[in-house]
Amino acid sequence: MKIIEDARAPNPRRLRIFLAEKGIKIEYEQLDITEFDHKKPEFAELNPLRRVPVLVLDDGTAISESVAICRYFEELQPEPALMGVGPEGRARTEMWQRRMELNLLYPVAQTFRHLHPAMKELEQPQVAAWGEANRPRVLNMLTLLDDELSHRPFVAGEEFTIADITAMVAVDFMKPAKIERPGNSPSLDRWYASVSSRPSATA
Amino acid sequence: MKIIEDARAPNPRRLRIFLAEKGIKIEYEQLDITEFDHKKPEFAELNPLRRVPVLVLDDGTAISESVAICRYFEELQPEPALMGVGPEGRARTEMWQRRMELNLLYPVAQTFRHLHPAMKELEQPQVAAWGEANRPRVLNMLTLLDDELSHRPFVAGEEFTIADITAMVAVDFMKPAKIERPGNSPSLDRWYASVSSRPSATA
Repeated sequence: MKIIEDARAPNPRRLRIFLAEKGIKIEYEQLDITEFDHKKPEFAELNPLRRVPVLVLDDGTAISESVAICRYFEELQPEPALMGVGPEGRARTEMWQRRMELNLLYPVAQTFRHLHPAMKELEQPQVAAWGEANRPRVLNMLTLLDDELSHRPFVAGEEFTIADITAMVAVDFMKPAKIERPGNSPSLDRWYASVSSRPSATA
Repeated sequence: MKIIEDARAPNPRRLRIFLAEKGIKIEYEQLDITEFDHKKPEFAELNPLRRVPVLVLDDGTAISESVAICRYFEELQPEPALMGVGPEGRARTEMWQRRMELNLLYPVAQTFRHLHPAMKELEQPQVAAWGEANRPRVLNMLTLLDDELSHRPFVAGEEFTIADITAMVAVDFMKPAKIERPGNSPSLDRWYASVSSRPSATA
């Protein structure tokens, strides 16, 4: 079993943190997105959508999409539970995971991809107005998240979950995307200090 | 238990088809997005992101995000399995569900939201160049899907799953988005004829 990734990209980082929290060790193989390694035909055989990370099982089966790979490992090794416990807990965790992915990580990524000069070749066409339109969405979501985190320690509830991983990776990705963290968000700041000091954060 | 939705929107339709396939009957309550019902404060208490559908449990707990609601019902009533069987099957189904959502339904929705005059007030700002940039993504994904479906009956494998639901809803949403289906895609056409003739398609 191995994971093919570019360790600098945010989605591979989500998976590495997830596996570190579970204490699962696995072989990693690097490819270089900036050298267009993911555009090569041999990689398309593993993921026709040409994204990283990809998990390759011993029989050659390839699974892509970070959250799908996380679920595979959650099923193989349920403890510690990172995707919720019980039908309602798992639904709530998935709800928050998706909110963090679609309404925080995704708009941060769109700001980066459509405004950063380094993405000129990888994101075609770059639409600057779309990049700009995503900036306030990020800040709105962080304001909402600050309010939510005033009621509970972690994004989806009382326990650290995949929703915290996605949210932390999104917040860190704001730096290359050149989006400033909002001031006066004490609950968000308390949560960020807590999750970013876990050993898994540097995985 | 009840589901709050606007029956005309694509995400509520995903959930209705999912529940119809499971034979689960549930109360629906309509709100009108075009009248901005989802912007009212009482709805924000159920979903601060103000999207439909929302599942409201008998104790008042609200779960939003279509796929999270689907997972809740998949856990309550596992048969027929619509999210895969076994760790590898569930990972593969989630991978294809996500591919269909993020690379087919989402770009169709972006084309609609950023180019359709009816969305002028709901999507602010409308960025026409971003709408146009999504059109070829839809067609590329359908070409890839046609190729995949030449190897198996359904999107994620031998069985009908949530990935087929998301893909069918996306294909149908191309009509209001004014994107033409590609010609010469026999496997896609065969699959579409099969899934759209299931009784659940009209749920």
